[in-house]
Amino acid sequence: MTLPKARMAKNAASRLSSASSDVRNAALDHFVKNLQDGRAKILAANQVDLDAAKRDCIADSLIGRLKLDDKKFDDLLKGLGVVMALPDPVGKCLMHRAIDDDLILQKITCPIGVVAVIFESRPDALPQIAALAIKSGNAIILKGGREAIHTNTALFDCLERAVIKAGLPQDCVQLLMDRKDVDALLAADDCIDLIIPRGSSDLVRYIQKNTDIQVLGHAEGICHAYVDASADLDLAAKVLIDAKCNYPAACNAIETILFDQSLPIEAMQSIVAALKERGVEVRAPEEEDLARQVGADVLPPQGAYVTEYGDLIVALAIVAGVDGAIEHVRQYGSGHTEIVIAQDQKIFDKFFAAVNAAGIYLNASSRFADGFRYGFGAEVGISTGKFHPRGPVGIEGLVSYKYKIIGKGNTVGEYADGTKTYKHKDL
Amino acid sequence: MTLPKARMAKNAASRLSSASSDVRNAALDHFVKNLQDGRAKILAANQVDLDAAKRDCIADSLIGRLKLDDKKFDDLLKGLGVVMALPDPVGKCLMHRAIDDDLILQKITCPIGVVAVIFESRPDALPQIAALAIKSGNAIILKGGREAIHTNTALFDCLERAVIKAGLPQDCVQLLMDRKDVDALLAADDCIDLIIPRGSSDLVRYIQKNTDIQVLGHAEGICHAYVDASADLDLAAKVLIDAKCNYPAACNAIETILFDQSLPIEAMQSIVAALKERGVEVRAPEEEDLARQVGADVLPPQGAYVTEYGDLIVALAIVAGVDGAIEHVRQYGSGHTEIVIAQDQKIFDKFFAAVNAAGIYLNASSRFADGFRYGFGAEVGISTGKFHPRGPVGIEGLVSYKYKIIGKGNTVGEYADGTKTYKHKDL
Repeated sequence: MTLPKARMAKNAASRLSSASSDVRNAALDHFVKNLQDGRAKILAANQVDLDAAKRDCIADSLIGRLKLDDKKFDDLLKGLGVVMALPDPVGKCLMHRAIDDDLILQKITCPIGVVAVIFESRPDALPQIAALAIKSGNAIILKGGREAIHTNTALFDCLERAVIKAGLPQDCVQLLMDRKDVDALLAADDCIDLIIPRGSSDLVRYIQKNTDIQVLGHAEGICHAYVDASADLDLAAKVLIDAKCNYPAACNAIETILFDQSLPIEAMQSIVAALKERGVEVRAPEEEDLARQVGADVLPPQGAYVTEYGDLIVALAIVAGVDGAIEHVRQYGSGHTEIVIAQDQKIFDKFFAAVNAAGIYLNASSRFADGFRYGFGAEVGISTGKFHPRGPVGIEGLVSYKYKIIGKGNTVGEYADGTKTYKHKDL
Repeated sequence: MTLPKARMAKNAASRLSSASSDVRNAALDHFVKNLQDGRAKILAANQVDLDAAKRDCIADSLIGRLKLDDKKFDDLLKGLGVVMALPDPVGKCLMHRAIDDDLILQKITCPIGVVAVIFESRPDALPQIAALAIKSGNAIILKGGREAIHTNTALFDCLERAVIKAGLPQDCVQLLMDRKDVDALLAADDCIDLIIPRGSSDLVRYIQKNTDIQVLGHAEGICHAYVDASADLDLAAKVLIDAKCNYPAACNAIETILFDQSLPIEAMQSIVAALKERGVEVRAPEEEDLARQVGADVLPPQGAYVTEYGDLIVALAIVAGVDGAIEHVRQYGSGHTEIVIAQDQKIFDKFFAAVNAAGIYLNASSRFADGFRYGFGAEVGISTGKFHPRGPVGIEGLVSYKYKIIGKGNTVGEYADGTKTYKHKDL
């Protein structure tokens, strides 16, 4: 059974993908105006959702995400402004080559088609993702959380009116509310080109296993910080505290610290103490004597190094230099973001070449793994896949490309029989 | 059950991916020398396969593909020379940005990891694909056809010795022979990063449906040629003949011609006559009166427009201008390659924007959809997916990227609390 809204989005997608940059920007402009004008109504709808959530005794952290206040609303509008100001990602020439004097090959970016996003309770995700989609010429199917239903409906209304006012087909934006729509979405591989799940690891894994559609995202963020013997220890403490404590629930927070065994014990102890001072629980398996000696508390071995705590908890391992760190990350890494604290650039270069991850940083917090911080304006998700796109995915991740050839009646026969010869000259 | 050779390839992959450009090029150099030195032995092994194929009464077309003669061998060595001369695709900087004065973000290409290729009887595919893999730092698992077993073994021997001589791990190249290994390969998603099937549509579809591993390729090549009313008719005939007759079995040969209904009937008739003169059977469904009037023979409607003939057969439809052509391609296209014959650039621009295909050409043969003709040296396959890579996939399609950040102890907290401000300046 086809999901009717997916079919509608697909039918509308090519009018959106062919629309000019001006028309897409006009839609975004109307969208921002509608949000500004509708602020009171949207915040009131959000209050209805919040009241219901409180009645249902939903956890405080979820309520915090669900809540849309004036500060969040301002940030949201600012983010949409950045997206609007981005250069058009559609129609960009990635390659320009003369195959022959009269035969020109170009590689030109184009929208992907229909993108479906399944997102968690945060209602500010809806306008961000919708703006990235419209800017990049993609039809979008939005499936928000049930607990944000009133807020999402109010936000979507602003979006839909903006699209219509810009002269784009109304069907190029779709909102799904029903949890059972998710399975129909996953089966709609004839209509949907990309699914972006933004939620728990369980949700992401479920989607990855249950659809033939390309999935962009990551199930886990087991991020490591390796502290080399060459590290500046004050810098190490500063970066580790930010990487763990700035927002422990984030996927780009570190879950494991790897100390080089050549570090002085006192250095390790002082870093562990600094973390504990900030309320961080430092864990290591029972058999890791050295880790325990520097201050790690015991953890049952089965849980060590494979858990995304999402909390003020960090696992600790002592490794044999950068090779030991590489080996540990190879065994336990999730391909998200890894950081190295070292003054010796060669150590970092070795780690960078050997480790598979979307981001590998030297002397900087893993929390920089974020589309806004990378300068993308906003992100649709973070991808740990090895194909384009990878890492924080902004607008560039929502375009594919087509090769264009402009000839003058060229045939391959002429090149095969030697009448003509390939030039292959980049322009 | 894990496929032992897949596990061995994965374990060896990171030494290959960290190897310098010089080491990878040395391996290719040894490979070419081994092939040159082993030419007589390889051609003798090929003769054993050819004799067996003749005994088994294998079709002439397959024997033609299986046969490795001096001409093919020379072309093969020439192609490997082009691949060797390509710039290193690993470690290329795709983005270089200052997030802040002391925080630098780079996007750097890296190998994908382990690539498995399942290829048809053509034994020359083995050295081509292996060369692209080694050049791009990827471990490679090669599964050739049973009918080419002696040739592939001889070719693989040259490859394996070259890899060892260059100081790379022997396990980074693997040859599979057994048909039952294919299913184990498809299940080895913990070891293999990419599967490239090169064979029949049935094989490709089987692989796409039976693995969680990323698949690069295309099942079908239903390529269309739209002849607009603005077309130069001599040019049209020349290009259509090449696109259909140059090599009808190729995936990039056209299967359907779409005539603009505004073309004079005599123009359509003369193009159809020119095709028939070259032995092309021109078909149209019974109800397509106009198509039959211009010379198309009848075809049962169920088979029209959805078949990749792979032969000197072409389907014909008369469409209502470029909009009708877009509609037809949207319904029947396979996303491979579409061509437009027109003198009016606007017609092409409209078609280009509205149609989803990896290649869309103006006034040139669809047969140019090929890695060698695009100037990539060789290709691992042609992809109809919408994610990178797409179209003929050369060496660039075998690299992914990692983001690199170089900081000086930067924490996101400082940016969140306003101590510092993001600069986001491209370098």
